[in-house]
Amino acid sequence: MNLIVQKFGGSSVANAERVRNVAGIVTETYKKGNNVVVVVSAQGDTTDDLIAKAHEINPNPSPREMDVLLTAGEQMSMALLAMEIERLGFPVKTLTGWQAGFLTDSTHGNARIRRINNERLDNELGKHNIVIVAGFQGMNRYDDLTTLGRGGSDTSAVAIAASLHADLCQIYTDVDGVYTADPRLVKNAHKMDAITYDEMLELATLGAGVLHNRSVEMAKKYNVNLEVLSSLTRNPGTIVKEVVRVEKMLIRGVAKDNNVARISIIGVPDTPGIAFKIFSHLAAKKVNVDIILQSIGRENKKDISFTVARENQELAVAIMEDLRQTLGAQKVICDDNISKVSIVGAGMQSNPGVASKMFEALAEENINIQMISTSEIKISVLVAQEESEKALNAIHDAFDL
Amino acid sequence: MNLIVQKFGGSSVANAERVRNVAGIVTETYKKGNNVVVVVSAQGDTTDDLIAKAHEINPNPSPREMDVLLTAGEQMSMALLAMEIERLGFPVKTLTGWQAGFLTDSTHGNARIRRINNERLDNELGKHNIVIVAGFQGMNRYDDLTTLGRGGSDTSAVAIAASLHADLCQIYTDVDGVYTADPRLVKNAHKMDAITYDEMLELATLGAGVLHNRSVEMAKKYNVNLEVLSSLTRNPGTIVKEVVRVEKMLIRGVAKDNNVARISIIGVPDTPGIAFKIFSHLAAKKVNVDIILQSIGRENKKDISFTVARENQELAVAIMEDLRQTLGAQKVICDDNISKVSIVGAGMQSNPGVASKMFEALAEENINIQMISTSEIKISVLVAQEESEKALNAIHDAFDL
Repeated sequence: MNLIVQKFGGSSVANAERVRNVAGIVTETYKKGNNVVVVVSAQGDTTDDLIAKAHEINPNPSPREMDVLLTAGEQMSMALLAMEIERLGFPVKTLTGWQAGFLTDSTHGNARIRRINNERLDNELGKHNIVIVAGFQGMNRYDDLTTLGRGGSDTSAVAIAASLHADLCQIYTDVDGVYTADPRLVKNAHKMDAITYDEMLELATLGAGVLHNRSVEMAKKYNVNLEVLSSLTRNPGTIVKEVVRVEKMLIRGVAKDNNVARISIIGVPDTPGIAFKIFSHLAAKKVNVDIILQSIGRENKKDISFTVARENQELAVAIMEDLRQTLGAQKVICDDNISKVSIVGAGMQSNPGVASKMFEALAEENINIQMISTSEIKISVLVAQEESEKALNAIHDAFDL
Repeated sequence: MNLIVQKFGGSSVANAERVRNVAGIVTETYKKGNNVVVVVSAQGDTTDDLIAKAHEINPNPSPREMDVLLTAGEQMSMALLAMEIERLGFPVKTLTGWQAGFLTDSTHGNARIRRINNERLDNELGKHNIVIVAGFQGMNRYDDLTTLGRGGSDTSAVAIAASLHADLCQIYTDVDGVYTADPRLVKNAHKMDAITYDEMLELATLGAGVLHNRSVEMAKKYNVNLEVLSSLTRNPGTIVKEVVRVEKMLIRGVAKDNNVARISIIGVPDTPGIAFKIFSHLAAKKVNVDIILQSIGRENKKDISFTVARENQELAVAIMEDLRQTLGAQKVICDDNISKVSIVGAGMQSNPGVASKMFEALAEENINIQMISTSEIKISVLVAQEESEKALNAIHDAFDL
């Protein structure tokens, strides 16, 4: 008998019909002789509706009371799912976050799980109940309700799978797996059967992932076998695990991210401490920097460029303008008509041909590369935004994804 | 410093504007130097909407999961009320039923409070927080969520007041107190300043009370001072307590109840055991009987009449028809075109003139009395339904209420 954790997001349980569909998946898994723990999000737009209701009353409510309000969302959706499973004649019990033993820190709105007290979960599974757990929520040591922040229900599911040593943790979404590229942009994109945690993490960072980073990090840490699949098609999805059988294909996926702006400080003195000054000021204002590039110094001058998310663009430019005189820089340039295109694949660095193949594909399409950044398993380039889709397809074809 | 418990029903917090109004009442009480515990119901139609959603999925869900679903209602409304109190700049903490220490039995949907563990409540009050508690809900000894059934939020409020030895428990509703009669029916009806628990209980039973019996019974048992008042007018309401200063007026109120049907079994043998047979059969089918009247035997025959609530009328008639032959009765008659009109007042029985004064008032209006029933503090008569309003006014005037 296997233990399977199944997580369903808000759109998977948005209405009575969807709830029936999910109950079908859950009970089929149970009928095959598995123990099943289901983690469920709030229905459809419930969370957004509750936030709007709160803001109508108070534009700046305390995070504690916001958590009290929002945790009601999963509580309602799990009860409704349980009622459908009852109707189908299966034994089922729901557990809120605190009933399921989720102990978190006190960072309301973005709490970290400290540990899970399994007693109740074990007890209900021991009675062969299907157990439904409210995702996204827990309780701190003062018995106050907390929420886990973005991607919280995925994290809940992975945490339960880790804690119970589940055989598999299935994350049901509205896509049927992880693709080599966004299928809406790249016509030859196809679903991968398997991918490593690290590759998944890089894809998630690129905005191409269907899983939140935090849940993938936790899955990697506790070696939880993940499967990403669709609640609508019932096809096999993509398995995420530590080691993926080496296949011919080295590159696992290609993705693009338009939420990026490049800022350049031109002509700063080529002396020590310049980079520290720049990035410590950005950090002090909580501006996250993605790619950093420093030109080789020439005539005692150098240029420093970096990318930030669009929402930080204005702030970052203002900080740089403030610094310009102190640094003795010539000028600050900002470009937000750009896109970051990346390829991801484990072992990329030990295959020197990969980067040049990517650059060749872009060159053949006459696409100018504005900036390059590499990591162990990722190569990113900045290109003009209007060329990003062409770039995506060219790279996808070049690597035969 | 006094401790005041304030309970607000669903209509009092139905929307943002009403929530602001309630927050105003609560913070005014707090500003006067009182400790305040607020008990709140789910907003407006939330509970009905959730029940409808449940029944769309499963017409017969388990009471356990229904409780999981419904308890979310108060959780949301208390968070919203807290946010408004935060906006006004007052310290506030919300507690769900289980956080507030409500331990109940396991009768989901109609649980009884076993005890309240005050620790958390005391702690928050000690920090001079306004504490908002979700009404209607608790937790059983397995850590499962339970609800208290009809009138549950009133019961929650009284239970907290009893447990914390509060100085006053205010029940805010949409009427501004307890009236001598329904003001919509009797033009001279007026609000009473005070009333005893027993009188309140009789009025509640008559359908005229604004409080559920269970909460009044608990208030009587633990000697909790209750006040029934309106959340909209801010006028003083009606105090409910053990002993009310004797006023000139003996009769506390008059009320009518149309939800009544009279069933008569005509011509049963005048032998022992007949009443037992009749009422044990009704009890076995859970039919509650209100008034019972047995005629004096004549020629070895007697008639037995009783009243039931309309919803039990059909069942009661069926049971009697089944019994007719066994009993050797002539026939079964049922009349639902009737109304029960009652007067309530402590010490009524020691004032023999009361009943006759009531009957006189009815006689003067030429209203026929079909059945009479008396208790220590109540006299009820059955009259034709179309005459009930006239009866109500005649009695009200006769007693100078």
